Amino acid sequence: MAIGADYAILADMLDHVLDTPGKVIRPAVTMLASQFGPEGQGNALYMARAVELLHIATLIHDDTVDRSALRRGKATIHSLWGEKVAVLVGDYVFALSATCVCDTNNVRVIRRFAETIMELSSGELMEYMASRDWTVTREQYLERTYRKTASLFRTATESGAVLSGVGEDVVKALSDYGYNLGMAFQVMDDILDIEGDADEVGKPVGSDLLQGTLTLPSILLIERQPENNPIQALFDGVDPDINLERTVSLIRDSSIMQDSYALAGEFAEKAIRALDVLPDNEARRCMAGLAHYAVQRRV
Amino acid sequence: MAIGADYAILADMLDHVLDTPGKVIRPAVTMLASQFGPEGQGNALYMARAVELLHIATLIHDDTVDRSALRRGKATIHSLWGEKVAVLVGDYVFALSATCVCDTNNVRVIRRFAETIMELSSGELMEYMASRDWTVTREQYLERTYRKTASLFRTATESGAVLSGVGEDVVKALSDYGYNLGMAFQVMDDILDIEGDADEVGKPVGSDLLQGTLTLPSILLIERQPENNPIQALFDGVDPDINLERTVSLIRDSSIMQDSYALAGEFAEKAIRALDVLPDNEARRCMAGLAHYAVQRRV
Repeated sequence: MAIGADYAILADMLDHVLDTPGKVIRPAVTMLASQFGPEGQGNALYMARAVELLHIATLIHDDTVDRSALRRGKATIHSLWGEKVAVLVGDYVFALSATCVCDTNNVRVIRRFAETIMELSSGELMEYMASRDWTVTREQYLERTYRKTASLFRTATESGAVLSGVGEDVVKALSDYGYNLGMAFQVMDDILDIEGDADEVGKPVGSDLLQGTLTLPSILLIERQPENNPIQALFDGVDPDINLERTVSLIRDSSIMQDSYALAGEFAEKAIRALDVLPDNEARRCMAGLAHYAVQRRV
Repeated sequence: MAIGADYAILADMLDHVLDTPGKVIRPAVTMLASQFGPEGQGNALYMARAVELLHIATLIHDDTVDRSALRRGKATIHSLWGEKVAVLVGDYVFALSATCVCDTNNVRVIRRFAETIMELSSGELMEYMASRDWTVTREQYLERTYRKTASLFRTATESGAVLSGVGEDVVKALSDYGYNLGMAFQVMDDILDIEGDADEVGKPVGSDLLQGTLTLPSILLIERQPENNPIQALFDGVDPDINLERTVSLIRDSSIMQDSYALAGEFAEKAIRALDVLPDNEARRCMAGLAHYAVQRRV
């Protein structure tokens, strides 16, 4: 992604972060959602760029506050240039994403974009403030999952739809698709934290739990076994290695993973069903395929 | 400033940061600049709120990366809740400010607002990357001063003008006023770092220099005495107390302060001259008064 900056050092930093694309699934669904209306795709392209830049900005700040050394196999900004630079470059990329949305000249999607940044940051905040809190409920988990992940997916598809000039029923359908796809993605991330191959996923098994974050499988375990469960001890810092292993075993030896897959599958199903009102074209089939991929992926 | 948040902990944090107004000069000039056109002031009010929120968001991030314990006499977010919370709350307030600009429904001012965030963050980055670099030129200083301070003043007045529905000549005049007022403000901040009363200003004399930041008076000293000046030694960490005192004495015992006041005065003068095209009303007199205040203030 070639983005100019009029200040050489900053331009180098931007090259560094923008040079290694991730799954680019958010811009992909923005473009797919823009295939159902009469308007050209020029504005959807601006939006797709904005959505990916926003995602990158949040990653820069997340990696900074989490002190992560690597992202997509490359050194993070804060590990190369320090925390102050990383906070400021993150702010710059947030603003850069906002200027891309302005290129759409559509105040409705610009406003939705700003609200999304509020949802993303408050979702991250919720997760952090609930760190090592094993009383988080399934409802709180779903609200946080919407904010920190599904919100941006929803904005991507909803904006693609709005910019293509479709009616409100189609906007609603594509907004619902994005919401449910995002929820399915995050639930699968939680599943992969327990079941994924550490090498493929790029982080050790149970790393969310070890960091004090309750994921869906761990919430299901607490629901079933509220007393004397190893998560409480794990979060209290008692024998973390042993209690993490016990937690992972208890989850794996129960029907919890099955139930977690079922929830991810439900979201994927709802995403696909939301597409029912759309004409059966290539874009719709692609989106349905993405919903299947979301719950079958191993990374 | 009453701002709701649908998440109780975050609402408390916002109350904390929004409860203690500063000089509120940026929203004031936004409103003053909106008094020359036919449009009502409703949109300028949204803009004024956005401008102050943006200023607060930048302060939250600045205080976080600078590890400042106090702001406006109150504990900073990061000192109360930690760095991670402060970065996320800063992001949230950036986004909140953006939603206020969206209330104006004017893509031109929304875009200018996003560009301003790019200027603010790249200006802060320039300052940080030039830390302990005594080769910064006057031109580089002026560019950085525009980005980190004058940009937001310019956006405040320019947007107030645009939203009030005036012609482009008046927009240009009010934009120039804001630019020059902001430059005068920052040059005066630099002057107060050397000449201000430590108790009144709230920080010790020479604190910018001690942090490795070249301010206008110190750049003028280097221009006059490029070799063997104490700033080089100060930035190299040699006897910081002695070399800071020597630097401050050299500046005070020369015509450097006079020249610095002259530059601040020039910007204030240009600000006032930019108002020439406007009708002579209360708002114009107020703005001229603010330009005088900018270079006479002691805090």
